[in-house]
Amino acid sequence: MDNFDFRNPTKIVFGRGTEARVGAETAAYSKKVLLHYGGGSVRASGLYDRVTASLKASGVEWIDLGGVKPNPRLSLVHEGVRLCKEKGLGMVLAVGGGSVIDSAKAIAMGAVIDGDVWDFYLGKGEPKAALPVGTVLTIPAAGSESSTGTVITNEVGLLKRAVNSELIYPRFSILNPELTFTLPRFQIACGAADIMAHLMERYFTTVEHVEFTDRLLEATMKTIALKAPVVLDNPQDYDAWSEVMWAGTIAHNNLLNAGRVGDWASHDIEHEISGIYDVAHGAGLAVVFPAWMKHTLNRDIARFAQWAARVWNVDVDFRNPEATAREGIRRLEAFYHSMGLGTRLADLKVGAGLMVGEDRLDEMASKCTDAGKRTVGNFVKLDRAAVRKVLELAR
Amino acid sequence: MDNFDFRNPTKIVFGRGTEARVGAETAAYSKKVLLHYGGGSVRASGLYDRVTASLKASGVEWIDLGGVKPNPRLSLVHEGVRLCKEKGLGMVLAVGGGSVIDSAKAIAMGAVIDGDVWDFYLGKGEPKAALPVGTVLTIPAAGSESSTGTVITNEVGLLKRAVNSELIYPRFSILNPELTFTLPRFQIACGAADIMAHLMERYFTTVEHVEFTDRLLEATMKTIALKAPVVLDNPQDYDAWSEVMWAGTIAHNNLLNAGRVGDWASHDIEHEISGIYDVAHGAGLAVVFPAWMKHTLNRDIARFAQWAARVWNVDVDFRNPEATAREGIRRLEAFYHSMGLGTRLADLKVGAGLMVGEDRLDEMASKCTDAGKRTVGNFVKLDRAAVRKVLELAR
Repeated sequence: MDNFDFRNPTKIVFGRGTEARVGAETAAYSKKVLLHYGGGSVRASGLYDRVTASLKASGVEWIDLGGVKPNPRLSLVHEGVRLCKEKGLGMVLAVGGGSVIDSAKAIAMGAVIDGDVWDFYLGKGEPKAALPVGTVLTIPAAGSESSTGTVITNEVGLLKRAVNSELIYPRFSILNPELTFTLPRFQIACGAADIMAHLMERYFTTVEHVEFTDRLLEATMKTIALKAPVVLDNPQDYDAWSEVMWAGTIAHNNLLNAGRVGDWASHDIEHEISGIYDVAHGAGLAVVFPAWMKHTLNRDIARFAQWAARVWNVDVDFRNPEATAREGIRRLEAFYHSMGLGTRLADLKVGAGLMVGEDRLDEMASKCTDAGKRTVGNFVKLDRAAVRKVLELAR
Repeated sequence: MDNFDFRNPTKIVFGRGTEARVGAETAAYSKKVLLHYGGGSVRASGLYDRVTASLKASGVEWIDLGGVKPNPRLSLVHEGVRLCKEKGLGMVLAVGGGSVIDSAKAIAMGAVIDGDVWDFYLGKGEPKAALPVGTVLTIPAAGSESSTGTVITNEVGLLKRAVNSELIYPRFSILNPELTFTLPRFQIACGAADIMAHLMERYFTTVEHVEFTDRLLEATMKTIALKAPVVLDNPQDYDAWSEVMWAGTIAHNNLLNAGRVGDWASHDIEHEISGIYDVAHGAGLAVVFPAWMKHTLNRDIARFAQWAARVWNVDVDFRNPEATAREGIRRLEAFYHSMGLGTRLADLKVGAGLMVGEDRLDEMASKCTDAGKRTVGNFVKLDRAAVRKVLELAR
């Protein structure tokens, strides 16, 4: 186990009806906030009305900024920053899924500096302060509700980049599983794929003597493997949603990587796919991860076999651990398929019917590795040629 | 799953050599602190010198208060409170195990009020503030390093009582597994029993649809079941200690009871035993828990069978789940025995060779239930007669 620091101060408010507490939780930080959300579903579902009623009851004023799209854009972040500065807002309240929360975190960092927040995403300098962020989560997936991360897409150059900072841990996150009952089937599946990916990125590590966190990760993966299909078929099953929602938060709140080094190559590669083609992050991960596994399997067959046995109940073939490991990958693919997700690049239904073109593989491998100047991943360090290989295995 | 709030702000600083950071972590809160510890081992091991060197280097002054005993006493707490007030100290720094940390938390609450901190332990009023507490942990056991709890014994009447408050979450806890290398064998065993008890108290719940936290608890129990025997036989095994130490913190930091209601009858009953006889808490728990299980088994055979199968690898007898459950209890007892702990009241080597007397069972059952005016436990509510029954099963 590596030395580590761990601190996650996000207050989780979990359960039925908890969005009614958003006013009181918000008022503890600011009486004048940016209310940040996505499209029409937050209004259509009545959530917008319940949230604003609670804000009103606690004497909190707000300025609206809706319109966050999946793969949230820098231009809207800039608008949020401008609003916070002009109106003297003291907090960003995100009502939505990971895209809304990631956008809110970017605004929170941008609102307290003179320069462009995008510089942080380019690795130029680190944030020194941020407005507090609060969230009301509507999509279990990204884990942004209790994480240090934010991922933003700059429309200019279609660059998708991340920032991690303890300053943007949300101060509170309200998790009511009832708010997920109206999610479209595809979005549920993508969310489950995203959660599973967060767990697998952490699981495949070269750090030794991490058996405790191995087991915690396996427990969480097994929960998603068992409960995600249940909520797909019964989207109003509160009990199953509770397990998925809470597991989705734990999957990405930094607890499960304490003392280990995660891989994250699959995320980096997927960011190139969704950066160019605007596919759903979870759908992209379902394509990249099995391919990544086939490419990296031999780095540590025992770890893959352990994962196959403990998460997917694969019968261990003691004379052939590689067969055990490969059966695990097959079950992961079957899990994706059972949720209606494809596991090949050609399965990605992009934009207006466009497919991820063969000709773009080189471009993605190049962008992902900064034109070959860096490698991605830690379990195995992938150079440009290796990324291209993973993309080929995903065909 | 029940609705819940969860927030644990303790910063964990984990790994080799991390006690060298205590000065910097402390200085963020106060430059004048109470340095609280137990007996001579902290000095003999050189830890005291390393801690004070680090404090000095960060410009932190300290007042010494050693002498904390297992089952920490109110009289020393009063002395600490007096010192904090007289010297204007701004933080309590605990260097030791759960007893030292529990005592530090009591001092931290007492230092900011005019009245007697014991009132909180009697349930008269709730703390409204506390000095910050920091810890350098030397014994993985109580979990106090990242918990809201403190248990203190009032010598007058031998009353052992607890307070829980978010105000006394330690601000930071430094966990270096190397600091455990010199622990006596009996203390290692008691620590493991204490950690296992924290997990079992949370596991045995009547709340339904808690499968995710079930699995996290099982993962943590399995870690202790596998790694505690390793460190007993190899007390300098850093890797195994890392797993035990980190699992011990997670076992009691409130994460694993989120959305569930734990039982805690075994703790209440054990407190009566150790309150009267001053036995080690973990040793007492090894006696009480199997007896409690035999008494409560029929409340939910399926849960006990699940625990037996998943934690203790018991082959499931599908036609006889009770046999599966009972085999789990037998394996728990075997686990205690393998660590040199007894599982009967007569095994407790108390004070100068005294045994827990038959005649005291009534007294303990009475004290535990406030003379029959309250029940203990949630999985099954035990009245005075039921507590007496559990104690009888422990004979």
